[in-house]
Amino acid sequence: MYYVGIDLGGTKIAAGLVDEQGRILSKASTNTGRERPADDIIEDMAMLTKKVISDYGVETGSVKSIGIGSPGIVNDKEGTLIYANNIHSLSNKNLRAGIQKFISLPVILDNDANCAALAESVAGAAKDVDHSVTITLGTGIGSGVVINRRIYSGMNNAGAELGHMVISMGGKKCNCGRTGCWEVYASATALIEQIKEAIIENPDSQIYRLVEGDLSKINPKVAFDAAKTGDNTAVQIINRYITYVAEGIINTVNIFCPQVVVIGGGISKQGEYLLKPIREIVKKYMLFKGNSSMEIRAAKMGNDAGIVGAAMLGRE
Amino acid sequence: MYYVGIDLGGTKIAAGLVDEQGRILSKASTNTGRERPADDIIEDMAMLTKKVISDYGVETGSVKSIGIGSPGIVNDKEGTLIYANNIHSLSNKNLRAGIQKFISLPVILDNDANCAALAESVAGAAKDVDHSVTITLGTGIGSGVVINRRIYSGMNNAGAELGHMVISMGGKKCNCGRTGCWEVYASATALIEQIKEAIIENPDSQIYRLVEGDLSKINPKVAFDAAKTGDNTAVQIINRYITYVAEGIINTVNIFCPQVVVIGGGISKQGEYLLKPIREIVKKYMLFKGNSSMEIRAAKMGNDAGIVGAAMLGRE
Repeated sequence: MYYVGIDLGGTKIAAGLVDEQGRILSKASTNTGRERPADDIIEDMAMLTKKVISDYGVETGSVKSIGIGSPGIVNDKEGTLIYANNIHSLSNKNLRAGIQKFISLPVILDNDANCAALAESVAGAAKDVDHSVTITLGTGIGSGVVINRRIYSGMNNAGAELGHMVISMGGKKCNCGRTGCWEVYASATALIEQIKEAIIENPDSQIYRLVEGDLSKINPKVAFDAAKTGDNTAVQIINRYITYVAEGIINTVNIFCPQVVVIGGGISKQGEYLLKPIREIVKKYMLFKGNSSMEIRAAKMGNDAGIVGAAMLGRE
Repeated sequence: MYYVGIDLGGTKIAAGLVDEQGRILSKASTNTGRERPADDIIEDMAMLTKKVISDYGVETGSVKSIGIGSPGIVNDKEGTLIYANNIHSLSNKNLRAGIQKFISLPVILDNDANCAALAESVAGAAKDVDHSVTITLGTGIGSGVVINRRIYSGMNNAGAELGHMVISMGGKKCNCGRTGCWEVYASATALIEQIKEAIIENPDSQIYRLVEGDLSKINPKVAFDAAKTGDNTAVQIINRYITYVAEGIINTVNIFCPQVVVIGGGISKQGEYLLKPIREIVKKYMLFKGNSSMEIRAAKMGNDAGIVGAAMLGRE
């Protein structure tokens, strides 16, 4: 059996034909053109689906389902996007009905963080275990919880928003209306903010030189690069950032007691430089020291996570 | 089919014969005598089991299992208590093997907070829904998560320790080794601490009169009683305490997206005086406003929660 997965993004729509093991057999993509009418975007999703199926030379009948991973909040029961970050024309649109006008297959929806978690569980960093949590450090913090190899998303596909777990009551403001959410401390966006604040106070930092004095060039990588050269300001930024990430991961481990925590997002490319200290803090402070086999790993699926995770929604 | 549930506590062991609907048919209890050797305590658990079965006049063959709800951490796979708060002689003891020396029935273990949550799900405040979280505000904060009417406890029966979710990084010290855990702000113990601190600074508070100047008599109820008379200090204490409770509940709702949050523990007897403001804060700040049908309710099972929840472990 084959599965189509569609990774619906603000700039690109990527689709793939995927097998039972989460391997991508054919792939196609197009620009989202997010200012376009919803119908045009939905038609493109259907056309990409047809393309990846025919490119691999199989019949539509051998495809079990089309899975869609979307930013924002989905209502899989109705087949609608309730709210699509960055792709406003799709808000409250019924993607299932729209796609089924072109191709007669079951359509399943979930949010992109859940799809990333499922992809890591089926074919990535957590494929050897039943219970895992995938944390994506990006613009915000995405999170997906996999229990017995299935996505847990509470009622109405909206659970496990670990990024909006307050870790610092009365702390920094979050877009969600609360103060002190984990993502305002530990997302990539938050790290960039922390870097900017720190180098304004420490203009002698290497980071300044790495971005040639242009604050708009600051990204997480430059802070890691500077820290690796021993730059004091950068080391302090990264150490503090790591404690922020770890604080939320310990909470997560105390709550879900997973076998593996997967960390994704561009920052996870820092590998052991990031993961080793996080692991040490988490192992030291997590409640159940007995759960010593719990592992923290970097995500493996990279850009394919969206396609594979969305496709694997159909396997559940 | 019948089920035996044993509520193993630091002062009392209570057992009951329970039917499929979670109704207690017969009940018996004895003092734990927690300084006694483990074998004596285990034998009492077996004898209580036999008593509640024979008191109701059924055959052992019509009983499906014996469930045990225990404080601390259990290993149901092995049948052992890993760590039993307050009953140290039972730590690392195999309760299953011990009880089966006297009575040949399957023995299932879980911790008391999970049992309380299961009891509320089967027969209590959350019996009409599939997904619920029960938060017990007591010495610490106990929590149990019920997903599709089953307890979720991660790997090794140790998940969902929401009380040890840090909500205030760098805040008050917790016994677990971290700082700022929810339970150091929102447990009954924490509230008592908050009352003491507040009335030392406000010696004119009603609370002083209610406890006749004896700080050792302070309990959560006196602060609620004083607040209800309009005592300014008490009102401030309770309002702040409510924001602490709500902070963790919003996190919980964002993470689990349950249909119902059940609040238990002695404080929950304050009913709407406690629940109404919590509900208002949670509904205002939870991420998914769409989940507006989510309800916050007081626990219903009271002292029977332990027996019923432990018994219902056998139904899973």
